[in-house]
Amino acid sequence: MTSPRSPSTYAESGVDRSAVSTALSELLAAVRFRPPPSHGRPLDAPGHYAGMIRIGRETIAVTTDTVGTKVLLAEELGRWEEVGEDIVGVNVNDLASVGARAAGLVDTILCARPDPTAFRAIGRGIDRGLRAAGCALLGGETAVVPSIVRGTDLGGTAFGFFPRGRAPVTGQRIRPHDLILGIPSNGLHANGFTLVRKLLGEAAVDLRRPREGARTPLGTELLAPTRIYSNAADALAGRTETRGLAHVSGGGVRNLARLHPGVGFVLDKWPAPPPLFEFVQRLGAISDEEMYQTFNMGIGFALVVVREHLSETRRRLARAGAPDAVPIGHVERGTGVTIPNLGLTYGGYS
Amino acid sequence: MTSPRSPSTYAESGVDRSAVSTALSELLAAVRFRPPPSHGRPLDAPGHYAGMIRIGRETIAVTTDTVGTKVLLAEELGRWEEVGEDIVGVNVNDLASVGARAAGLVDTILCARPDPTAFRAIGRGIDRGLRAAGCALLGGETAVVPSIVRGTDLGGTAFGFFPRGRAPVTGQRIRPHDLILGIPSNGLHANGFTLVRKLLGEAAVDLRRPREGARTPLGTELLAPTRIYSNAADALAGRTETRGLAHVSGGGVRNLARLHPGVGFVLDKWPAPPPLFEFVQRLGAISDEEMYQTFNMGIGFALVVVREHLSETRRRLARAGAPDAVPIGHVERGTGVTIPNLGLTYGGYS
Repeated sequence: MTSPRSPSTYAESGVDRSAVSTALSELLAAVRFRPPPSHGRPLDAPGHYAGMIRIGRETIAVTTDTVGTKVLLAEELGRWEEVGEDIVGVNVNDLASVGARAAGLVDTILCARPDPTAFRAIGRGIDRGLRAAGCALLGGETAVVPSIVRGTDLGGTAFGFFPRGRAPVTGQRIRPHDLILGIPSNGLHANGFTLVRKLLGEAAVDLRRPREGARTPLGTELLAPTRIYSNAADALAGRTETRGLAHVSGGGVRNLARLHPGVGFVLDKWPAPPPLFEFVQRLGAISDEEMYQTFNMGIGFALVVVREHLSETRRRLARAGAPDAVPIGHVERGTGVTIPNLGLTYGGYS
Repeated sequence: MTSPRSPSTYAESGVDRSAVSTALSELLAAVRFRPPPSHGRPLDAPGHYAGMIRIGRETIAVTTDTVGTKVLLAEELGRWEEVGEDIVGVNVNDLASVGARAAGLVDTILCARPDPTAFRAIGRGIDRGLRAAGCALLGGETAVVPSIVRGTDLGGTAFGFFPRGRAPVTGQRIRPHDLILGIPSNGLHANGFTLVRKLLGEAAVDLRRPREGARTPLGTELLAPTRIYSNAADALAGRTETRGLAHVSGGGVRNLARLHPGVGFVLDKWPAPPPLFEFVQRLGAISDEEMYQTFNMGIGFALVVVREHLSETRRRLARAGAPDAVPIGHVERGTGVTIPNLGLTYGGYS
């Protein structure tokens, strides 16, 4: 779906998505083992945000993700608390996308040298994230491997469960006529930083000064931690009118297509992207098409609900810390994701 | 506990354990949040192999670990299947140490460039590991981050559960007079490779030729995948005569001290280490003290059982794929770990 006309694309910035998916297909093709039921019963939800497995009476959901190259910005600015919080955010938001309630997190820190000050800040950030998600830190791994990493890599794995009576929200019940709500993001979150860093470097932008029209230094604005949608999703998951939940992470709006291959997601009410996104777009002369499939463009979490329950759903979201949820579109017959105002059409998720 | 007399120690090879634990203490001190019971109830088992949390009727155990710098050897030799299997082994053996049955694994691959051939081999290795542990692959993260990693980093997170009627095996019921059994390792597993690689480099050893007395090329011998003890532990966990289980990983025999701070583990029947360990020791003129707290020295998993159940336990282990388990010592009043034949004493685990 990458436009050949766009001057800056993700592939050009060093991330070739098709090379990743080819290699990953090779790996997955080689993993054939299916365990006996005495070790739990995996649920089938291919391509979804979380793996799930039935253990006794419980269904456990698990997600794993890293903060990616946003850590390089943290290092450059010597600020670690935000990316510490991102370790939690990038994972619990994926759990929230299947309607699981966060229970535990383990972190993984790979570094060339363990800096106590940075580690304390990372700890503060993790603590903030855990509070927002209601999640416990259950362990972690710290590996000092200067021969493998330059600087630091931050990642984690989170798992959650479905409170009694709640089933996973996979999106399969989504139907035409459903409404799509969006909850605003808190900036770029932890996606697109390979591209952003390349553009900032090329333009020799000073991260310690605000961009035009802003008051915070650009570096601080870019580092803002991923908003955590756990409470919002927890308030809606398990209700019959809640048909789909989607973390708008890497892949941008295309994430919606993960929820159901047989319906069209029409985003005709997407709000104007915050100025930070316009700044990034101008910096790289990036096409709209690339922007909306790389960044969250101002909406970090999407919820698909039965139209008749709109007001009630918004009240619930407001009580769960998301009074700023807004309608961003609806579901139609068709496939993929379209943004009619911009003339954009995305096929299925790849 | 590092001997100042030993010519090669782990600190000198670039891994300063005390710097890691200082930084880690800073991080952990900053994480204060304890979630409400509606998000699960964490079990208190500090310093143990796995984090555990009670969710509904189930207790979930979780472990996370990486393959460490063994991947650099894999890269040098262009062989990836063994380290792929290690992703599973390093994690499920930690689960086995609390008596949890493996259920699911997620892998994390960070790489500078995704090589389909390497990924397929990693997949084959993961598949082998999963088969040995009875575990499902529930997801993973592949990040192409040439700005963060040189080469490749392999890690994972595993989780497991306790079948109905089985409690976690924490070691707290260990008493003087108990016996300690050991199950042989399959080589170095995935520990000590930073030191080993440094020694091999300094001595300009040819990895494609066997060491003296061996038939396999040294590189292949060093890469042998971590033996997986899941079935052996699963056969003993939950039985009242089984009082402690310990994966002998980084930290060597000191791992035993994690099981109970108030007893002494006397390893007076430790078998002669396989020749590969003697080769490594000679290569670096490494002290016995450093060897036994860095490598598994031929025993990859230890089990503490009530003395009167020795024969029955060995029969069970034989049926579970470990007919080669042997008595390696016993428990006495005291603290720490001693190897009387070598005059070695290790305090608590740090």
